[in-house]
Amino acid sequence: MYLRSIVTRLNASRSNFIRSRSMASGLQREIPALTKDRYPIKRGKFAELNDSDLSKFESILGKGRVLTQAEDIQSYNIDYLGSVRGYSRVVLKPKSTEEVAELLKFCNERRLAVCPQGGNTGLVGGSVPVFDEVVISLQLMDRIEQVDEYSGILVCQSGCVLETLEEKAKEKGLVMPLDLGAKGSCHIGGNVSTNAGGLRLLRYGNLHGSVLGVEAVTAQGHVLDLMSNFKKDNTGYHLKHLFIGSEGTLGIITRLSIFCPTASRAVNVAFLGLESYEAVKDTFLAAKRGLGEILSSCEMMDDLSLQCSMQHFNLTCPIDKYPFYMLIETSGSNMSHDEEKLTTFLENTMEKGLVLDGTVTNETTKMRSIWRLRESIPDSLLKDGYCHKYDISLPLDNFYDIVLATRKRVGSLATKVTGYGHVGDSNLHLNVTCPKFSPELYKLLEPFVYEYTSNVRGSVSAEHGIGFLKTKYLKYSKRPEALAVMAQMKQMMDPNGILNPYKVLPQI
Amino acid sequence: MYLRSIVTRLNASRSNFIRSRSMASGLQREIPALTKDRYPIKRGKFAELNDSDLSKFESILGKGRVLTQAEDIQSYNIDYLGSVRGYSRVVLKPKSTEEVAELLKFCNERRLAVCPQGGNTGLVGGSVPVFDEVVISLQLMDRIEQVDEYSGILVCQSGCVLETLEEKAKEKGLVMPLDLGAKGSCHIGGNVSTNAGGLRLLRYGNLHGSVLGVEAVTAQGHVLDLMSNFKKDNTGYHLKHLFIGSEGTLGIITRLSIFCPTASRAVNVAFLGLESYEAVKDTFLAAKRGLGEILSSCEMMDDLSLQCSMQHFNLTCPIDKYPFYMLIETSGSNMSHDEEKLTTFLENTMEKGLVLDGTVTNETTKMRSIWRLRESIPDSLLKDGYCHKYDISLPLDNFYDIVLATRKRVGSLATKVTGYGHVGDSNLHLNVTCPKFSPELYKLLEPFVYEYTSNVRGSVSAEHGIGFLKTKYLKYSKRPEALAVMAQMKQMMDPNGILNPYKVLPQI
Repeated sequence: MYLRSIVTRLNASRSNFIRSRSMASGLQREIPALTKDRYPIKRGKFAELNDSDLSKFESILGKGRVLTQAEDIQSYNIDYLGSVRGYSRVVLKPKSTEEVAELLKFCNERRLAVCPQGGNTGLVGGSVPVFDEVVISLQLMDRIEQVDEYSGILVCQSGCVLETLEEKAKEKGLVMPLDLGAKGSCHIGGNVSTNAGGLRLLRYGNLHGSVLGVEAVTAQGHVLDLMSNFKKDNTGYHLKHLFIGSEGTLGIITRLSIFCPTASRAVNVAFLGLESYEAVKDTFLAAKRGLGEILSSCEMMDDLSLQCSMQHFNLTCPIDKYPFYMLIETSGSNMSHDEEKLTTFLENTMEKGLVLDGTVTNETTKMRSIWRLRESIPDSLLKDGYCHKYDISLPLDNFYDIVLATRKRVGSLATKVTGYGHVGDSNLHLNVTCPKFSPELYKLLEPFVYEYTSNVRGSVSAEHGIGFLKTKYLKYSKRPEALAVMAQMKQMMDPNGILNPYKVLPQI
Repeated sequence: MYLRSIVTRLNASRSNFIRSRSMASGLQREIPALTKDRYPIKRGKFAELNDSDLSKFESILGKGRVLTQAEDIQSYNIDYLGSVRGYSRVVLKPKSTEEVAELLKFCNERRLAVCPQGGNTGLVGGSVPVFDEVVISLQLMDRIEQVDEYSGILVCQSGCVLETLEEKAKEKGLVMPLDLGAKGSCHIGGNVSTNAGGLRLLRYGNLHGSVLGVEAVTAQGHVLDLMSNFKKDNTGYHLKHLFIGSEGTLGIITRLSIFCPTASRAVNVAFLGLESYEAVKDTFLAAKRGLGEILSSCEMMDDLSLQCSMQHFNLTCPIDKYPFYMLIETSGSNMSHDEEKLTTFLENTMEKGLVLDGTVTNETTKMRSIWRLRESIPDSLLKDGYCHKYDISLPLDNFYDIVLATRKRVGSLATKVTGYGHVGDSNLHLNVTCPKFSPELYKLLEPFVYEYTSNVRGSVSAEHGIGFLKTKYLKYSKRPEALAVMAQMKQMMDPNGILNPYKVLPQI
């Protein structure tokens, strides 16, 4: 009774809710400095684009799908965070695998560097050119080929927007195995290329498990058909994994098949207030045990993160102020069963003093309002001016310490140092904001954050990937022998190094 | 009430129940012909073992862990099915990663071919030597390093027996994400190397999703530390997947970390009788929707499979005779919730005429008896003398047709043609038995079965892998461009080709 009654206090405004990232719909910020000027990086020995190249592109795609006007291509050169900017002169928009293959074959022969781009929602500078790379946008490759309600298999081209796929899956009683804040703009091909994590990973696992097959075009323009419609398919080396998480540096994914679980009829969301990180950790264990198979999200945020989200987007918190908050979502097939489990879990954790206050709801609008509190955090932090984002995996025992250590280290140079994230997957988002990019703060943060992470045996990139911004920190999570094999792999798959250069692998 | 009451008819004998495969505890059969005599295959240009090699091995491992006596090594040369036999002269038993690295470094320099071996329970001849390869058995690498109840991470050496890990996980309220008939003998390293599927894949996904990190030794003796304790870890190319499912041809897995879900407190098993395969398919869809998150296994078997299992192991079926049977298992956190879901599901499917008879139980002994009916099928079929086993993935629409087509094709040459398997994962086990191996029947079956599978766009190996027996059929599931990349990968990782030669990749 107590828990339910609090729901009525929920009264968040929907109008400011941001579910999609894109330069068009995103926040208006000043145009950032060119990457080549901000970071010490040298252009590779690639050819420079000439008119005859443009004619060749037009012969493959037709004029309308070769963009060269400055105003048309600006958004393809800047990332969502405004942290990097390239100066590509051309954006290509193929519609078919064959066109991608023709373009790559030509670029490879001409030694033209290429930057593949999906929804351009990445946070590590992986999806925009560093210099003048040719942009191949997958935007027009958005055909959904099959959604099978029996097997749960969805087959589509890689330029489909995640939210569109989610809607199609829903029509067949299925659900996409991943959900991201950027779902309204991000492409499934980009999700797969970066092995995106997100909010449902806790329940449905990562994309290495969910993606059943891919079709990819190699740097040399060969089409690799690694499609499969089966969860069990042990026929030779599992090459598809080369393309999952390699961020477009080994090939361009053009089609894929993905397993969609059965959609849940019943969804509940609880929002809880807690005194300490220790209580967060113990509440997570209690949730795993008490909610078991219906637990579908387990998020945490500190008070500073929540206040920022509330303030910038004019949202209301359904409970009192506490040092920490958790958002717990359940998804199941029977509402009364799930409510009973959730109520028992909340009673137990409140009795033990782990949870101090809480609200729970299954009303769509109210659930959305609660999710909004969590999902608006990343964007609200950007409003401080500039935001250093760290996306790290940490052992649960040391999960929040890094926020305190960073806060102490940077002192008043930062506007805010906050921590939030997917505690259920050991994934923390450490964010440090300031009015504008300053080399002084940057130097205090890096490599400090990565060294700290490495010292507790964490991962320097949990779900965002390495992209351009983190290549020099890869060594904190991978040993020289592994880096050597990665370099061999790149050499094998892309001998001329034209595919998304300066990304993922450390520059020598 | 009707459903419950039938449970009392269960009275299967436990004594004959086979949960583990090994030559020692397995079925007594005659020693098979040497692989080199049965199949047209030429020994590679590898060095032959000499006394100085043996001395070197002894200097690394000590005398006791270098087996050379014929009676000691016979079981390492013969596979579980008795379908292949090598003539290795030496079995090495390292205890540490460093020892494995030293052994491989030496073998690579000496051009001695190596066959890595786990529990030797594979069904495609991948785990025994083809000629005289040096056997490296991981048997003594069975240390469990960590089981963390919060994160669910289990870290261990690769020679741990699956059942032992299952017990350790259970102590912490966790469950291993895979379960196989061979669990009492198979090694986790072998499971990962072959990307084993099994009975829980429907619920917990495949090993590409569950395995968080591996440590592997390359052919040249380099230790690749790709360990990770996180579900989210996007730091460079996801190299660990190279070793998952490549059957020991790219490296030897020595350690690994794996994510263990929370164990379910409530388990129910239903055994159902159905009139047709169409009813099986529709019942599966009803189970996905009605049981949702608690569905943990969905198996089917035809009557011939069940009769064979009952007859050879003296088991009793809890329901009347039907053309098809299904075994449906649920695992959840609340018994009364799960029972309610299961009862509703069964009432609905019986009302619709999909399920004609059924029994459901949550008593451990009775559940085990029902599982025994299904799990004894593979071994019972071996008792006919020789068994051709096909492990294929097929679209659910064409799932059972191949059994009928094969039966028609082989006529009286076969003792039995049966079909059973993991219908929930589109994975059929087609088995063809005969008194002893006959080239005539073999030629009727292969490549017929693979061509049929390929024509309906199935996979020629669902969970067993390619091993030695299926290399020439890989082309039915993978196109030349993909095979070419696989060959390049092998060349890159193992330039001298010493690791598990004649396996996985087609012989040129």
